[in-house]
Amino acid sequence: MADRLTMRLQCPVPKMDFEVIQLGHGSGGLMTHRLLKSGVFEVLQNEFLKEEHDGAVLQLNGKTAITTDSFVVSPLFFPGGNIGDLAINGTVNDLAMCGAKPAYLTLACILEEGFPLADYWEILLTIREAGKAAGIKIVSGDTKVVEKGKGDGIFINTTGVGTVHPRADIRASRIQPGDVVLVSGPVASHGMAIMSVREGLEFETTLQSDSAPVHDIVWDLLENYGSAIRFLRDPTRGGIASSLNEAASQRKLGIRLQQTEIPMLEEVEGACELLGMDPLYVANEGIFLAIVAPDIAQQAVERMHQFPRGAQAAIIGQVVTEHPGQVVLDSSIGGKRVVAMLAGEQLPRIC
Amino acid sequence: MADRLTMRLQCPVPKMDFEVIQLGHGSGGLMTHRLLKSGVFEVLQNEFLKEEHDGAVLQLNGKTAITTDSFVVSPLFFPGGNIGDLAINGTVNDLAMCGAKPAYLTLACILEEGFPLADYWEILLTIREAGKAAGIKIVSGDTKVVEKGKGDGIFINTTGVGTVHPRADIRASRIQPGDVVLVSGPVASHGMAIMSVREGLEFETTLQSDSAPVHDIVWDLLENYGSAIRFLRDPTRGGIASSLNEAASQRKLGIRLQQTEIPMLEEVEGACELLGMDPLYVANEGIFLAIVAPDIAQQAVERMHQFPRGAQAAIIGQVVTEHPGQVVLDSSIGGKRVVAMLAGEQLPRIC
Repeated sequence: MADRLTMRLQCPVPKMDFEVIQLGHGSGGLMTHRLLKSGVFEVLQNEFLKEEHDGAVLQLNGKTAITTDSFVVSPLFFPGGNIGDLAINGTVNDLAMCGAKPAYLTLACILEEGFPLADYWEILLTIREAGKAAGIKIVSGDTKVVEKGKGDGIFINTTGVGTVHPRADIRASRIQPGDVVLVSGPVASHGMAIMSVREGLEFETTLQSDSAPVHDIVWDLLENYGSAIRFLRDPTRGGIASSLNEAASQRKLGIRLQQTEIPMLEEVEGACELLGMDPLYVANEGIFLAIVAPDIAQQAVERMHQFPRGAQAAIIGQVVTEHPGQVVLDSSIGGKRVVAMLAGEQLPRIC
Repeated sequence: MADRLTMRLQCPVPKMDFEVIQLGHGSGGLMTHRLLKSGVFEVLQNEFLKEEHDGAVLQLNGKTAITTDSFVVSPLFFPGGNIGDLAINGTVNDLAMCGAKPAYLTLACILEEGFPLADYWEILLTIREAGKAAGIKIVSGDTKVVEKGKGDGIFINTTGVGTVHPRADIRASRIQPGDVVLVSGPVASHGMAIMSVREGLEFETTLQSDSAPVHDIVWDLLENYGSAIRFLRDPTRGGIASSLNEAASQRKLGIRLQQTEIPMLEEVEGACELLGMDPLYVANEGIFLAIVAPDIAQQAVERMHQFPRGAQAAIIGQVVTEHPGQVVLDSSIGGKRVVAMLAGEQLPRIC
């Protein structure tokens, strides 16, 4: 905990006459005002927040994507990130999956009474850094406080808007037989990083969450291949298995995956084996799946390789007319198995 | 509880093989899919949700307002509404306070494991009705589940966008000395309705939350008086005292209120006296404050009277150069007192 703070906190926690969040910080009165003034506004400052209004007024033109996500990850801090960057990257990536350039985010926090101010501050600073890295602005927000035992530290909602690429036309209904399935990077890193903390393995492994924005890679693909990019999805909860099952079932076509082609970090593979997890179902927070026209698939992967976070991008499968609605895996040992949709809960509160 | 259900549930709870929310409903897999398919999508259906994407693509042009709010009200059901309509009206009204016509909302729910499906369903139906009444569409959403004891039934975030009226220019910095303070209806109803449940008074009084959208009245004012409407605020948490203090402190001018002019329902006044609450600090969910140019104030109030929810609109005060940053009340017994900003917490989890 000490290490984490020393490493990440760039500016000191503001001097306030409290060390933990109190119910009064959600009152809408003086305490809320002081928390926001000396905390949120100070850290996230921009021309929109300066107005201190209940909302922000933006100039938006044309096709605009909007997406919302609440984050309830547990633990709040994990190798490779915390709930703050997860909340930014998650929404940035959802916008990217709509073919949009992320522009503005709102930020709503539900704090639990007694939550340490130092943790709150660190999360805010992480949000600021993640926001800068993704090129977005936090334009409006909300802060609520619930009694101790009625929440779990902090829950964060981010909602984002961004302008859709003029040539983007991303819909499951556009997927065609013969289309190719790409993944932008190694799978299962986020879920296994969270698991490593829960199972007390974090000091034995180098597992790290892949939490990162992917909008720049997506935008580059759209610039170069436009509507040949048929479908995009970031495989968070439920992993790549769930996202591809959704695509197959919506479009009533089959998807055939090659297990040997699916990139995965060695330590992630090891942790999956150790803990008996199927990596296809494990959550990701910094990769995306693309289903693209066959004639541009190879070039697209090569373009993705130019980006640090796309260095391991790969073709992992194909859309087929057989087994409609199902995802089938050619396993590394030569067999075949149906990859069903995740039935129950594999890892609660992974994001 | 039985009465409430009989009265409000228009369609039966869907037949599912569970009666309470389970952790698996937040998995992103099959259980989430089924909950959404048979629940949320069915109830809230529109052309945007049909895509079942992670976000929605909207056509927006020009100045667009965006605002976010999380709702943690306790109890979830109260006289005059529940967390569902509160979550719609709260965000609709925040958009209206930016001078915007509410158009699209996102909906993110954090459910607690064990939350009754019947309650969830009723809240969804209320959301649908409130959405229709306000003329908005729910275009994107998110559902998370936390373990029992880590939440409190349901928390809801709504984020809204809407197009700003071309003649709207609403900013504290535009407030002038001599401007007039209007309120659109009787104060303190929402907070006292919540209090009545908490104090076990709900069967002895007729107190009801004022939860309602006010955007139609605001739009009418903007159509007729444009930029003569300088400042708008919906006095939720912290009541009209906190909203007016914010305006006075931002603009560094004083505000003088006439207590005898502030409309309040008789039963609300009685409950405030009984429970020792100052109605100026009690939350509202269906009224707004407007600071307007003096020459249109009287006509504006008369226009507001044409709307059922504006029938008791009144001029309650004036902007002055004296006591900058402070709100001063001419009390009904002839005295004068400073109405400070709410210091601590009066009523936790009022919205």
